[in-house]
Amino acid sequence: MKIKYELLNNDTKTKARYGLIHTNHGTYETPIFMPVGTQATVKTLCKEELKEIGSGIILSNTYHLWLRPGEDIISRAGGLHKFMNYDGPILTDSGGFQVFSLAKNKKKDITEEGVHFKSHIDGSNLFLTPELSIQIQNKLDSDIAMSFDECIPYPADYDYAKESTERTLRWAKRGKDAFDNENQSLFGIVQGGEYEDLRKYSAIETVKMNFDGYSIGGTSVGEDKETMYKMIDYAVEYLPTDKPRYLMGVGDPIDIIEGVIRGIDMFDCVLPTRIARHGNAFTRNGKINIKNNKYKDDFTKIEPDCDCYTCKNYTKAYIRHLIVSNESLGQRLLSIHNIRFLTKLTEDLRECVKNNNILEYKEEFIRKYSGDNGNKN
Amino acid sequence: MKIKYELLNNDTKTKARYGLIHTNHGTYETPIFMPVGTQATVKTLCKEELKEIGSGIILSNTYHLWLRPGEDIISRAGGLHKFMNYDGPILTDSGGFQVFSLAKNKKKDITEEGVHFKSHIDGSNLFLTPELSIQIQNKLDSDIAMSFDECIPYPADYDYAKESTERTLRWAKRGKDAFDNENQSLFGIVQGGEYEDLRKYSAIETVKMNFDGYSIGGTSVGEDKETMYKMIDYAVEYLPTDKPRYLMGVGDPIDIIEGVIRGIDMFDCVLPTRIARHGNAFTRNGKINIKNNKYKDDFTKIEPDCDCYTCKNYTKAYIRHLIVSNESLGQRLLSIHNIRFLTKLTEDLRECVKNNNILEYKEEFIRKYSGDNGNKN
Repeated sequence: MKIKYELLNNDTKTKARYGLIHTNHGTYETPIFMPVGTQATVKTLCKEELKEIGSGIILSNTYHLWLRPGEDIISRAGGLHKFMNYDGPILTDSGGFQVFSLAKNKKKDITEEGVHFKSHIDGSNLFLTPELSIQIQNKLDSDIAMSFDECIPYPADYDYAKESTERTLRWAKRGKDAFDNENQSLFGIVQGGEYEDLRKYSAIETVKMNFDGYSIGGTSVGEDKETMYKMIDYAVEYLPTDKPRYLMGVGDPIDIIEGVIRGIDMFDCVLPTRIARHGNAFTRNGKINIKNNKYKDDFTKIEPDCDCYTCKNYTKAYIRHLIVSNESLGQRLLSIHNIRFLTKLTEDLRECVKNNNILEYKEEFIRKYSGDNGNKN
Repeated sequence: MKIKYELLNNDTKTKARYGLIHTNHGTYETPIFMPVGTQATVKTLCKEELKEIGSGIILSNTYHLWLRPGEDIISRAGGLHKFMNYDGPILTDSGGFQVFSLAKNKKKDITEEGVHFKSHIDGSNLFLTPELSIQIQNKLDSDIAMSFDECIPYPADYDYAKESTERTLRWAKRGKDAFDNENQSLFGIVQGGEYEDLRKYSAIETVKMNFDGYSIGGTSVGEDKETMYKMIDYAVEYLPTDKPRYLMGVGDPIDIIEGVIRGIDMFDCVLPTRIARHGNAFTRNGKINIKNNKYKDDFTKIEPDCDCYTCKNYTKAYIRHLIVSNESLGQRLLSIHNIRFLTKLTEDLRECVKNNNILEYKEEFIRKYSGDNGNKN
């Protein structure tokens, strides 16, 4: 069965919307934040912890799983859900983003056929095509697969952006033609860089191919916030209301709010687990670094009113001790808190859509998050 | 309240015994294996996992906590239980073992007053005495504290062993005199190296001081198995039956069985978590290394009849993928299995005492564990 998007509420003042996505592995509410399980595991966490956090869908990386352990082993295990024993919905990316960050010479390595690049594990030469990305994802048997695209760097001149956007459309068509898994859905990806006409063109042409959902790619690659928000606006205008919209690689709390206001349903980012490894925790008053000396004997919780396992059980002083002592439980406790923070944020935003008060929520959130009581984000 | 040992069953054919130890944080059955939480955390695990494994008491390291975060911070948190939010019983070692492995020149660094050594964190000069070790442990407020002793290396000549054993007795007395925590118990440690008369002398003199329990130290320091077993025999003969006996630093499954047969009640070792970090798992058929290529597509459990979380949920192929990909969930899953393996072993041994069949159990265990189906230990 393909996924099915059900639109339940439209905010009256913005493009924000509340909906449901029905999958073969359960139904989840949108807007939603998806934790990233790069190598078939959300770093440091087990499935019970993800459930307790309230994660509705997780993301895993095709490129990493292709290299290790390989899609054939996962297929023989019965697919990615069985391999990692996770019964919730899973989205796999196309490998495109990882590949482009590994391709040394973009002009030389990106051909019409696909992308040449070197393995980050052993440096061996690899070649990924739109068809191969889809074939791997078909074998991984995730709930949602992504089209293979080129993530246009920022800044990119107009001619390059146009050429790349057109190639991504051809790749989307090739991937869709190669797609062969009736229990899996496929999302198209809108590119176009910072250029309004290219975003419009990419959106219209991608939608013509009739994917199960649409992603906005090529953001969070170094552009300023206003440019990112414009990229979203340019694309969303041409996306259908009966399919989910996914903003790739975005996990900053304020960006999530801005994305939801612009009509986005799904987000993913390694941010909450990555910053956890460096001792950082999200709070409503801004990010804090738990390694700071002032937390040495701070026996209060990261956020006293947070409902996560970490805040229900452990003090800043203990978590600081774990992080400073390089104990992985520390990273785990911060990962739980940080993912819960973004999950709770999307839960709040859903309520806002129902109550038509998302703009007030945003103002209040930004005031506290960027305010005097915390660090700038 | 001090701990209270309750002897419930004596094996009729060996010195093995089944008992209970009542503490301020609950009662646990003996023989028991104690997982090691060096830095106020059993590596990669949370308290709920330890509970599920069936761990009755855990060990934490005075030396590490003294250096980081410092006993005063833990004391201000309300003691070690509150600091790490663990409500089960905790035993702290004296720091002696860590100190001796860090003292560069034993003859120069060990004085009658105490031990000079360098911090493993920043190389700074430190000095630990019997009194200071006890004062730190009093502040940590563990359920059971250990006397500060010298762990005699193996081999050691008779004169050195005698001199050291006598000094350890003087240190035991000094520590006991300095001890000041009515809710904490204190164990004495029998030294004496490989020498029967010194072990006897050490045991008799230590028991005269009337500790709440007795430990046998200086084993697992390079001696052969037969010598280790003799060291136990030499000491246990002179230990009272109404106090618990603890064999320090022993976690090899066969050594645990041999120890129980010789009258030991408590064991601790970093082995199950340390080997987990290198991809090793205990099985009834010997240790296996999950990184072995043959497990790449082995979709069976580590032990199909094991009741641990890991074996109930994950395949060898998945755990191998996690370990090979350096994902900490892999170490966590193997740690859970390995600690459960030793915990289950002691549960079995308790049943054996009640059924007077520990020798048959030992024979069968060794046959399988060292047999054709597995690797030599």
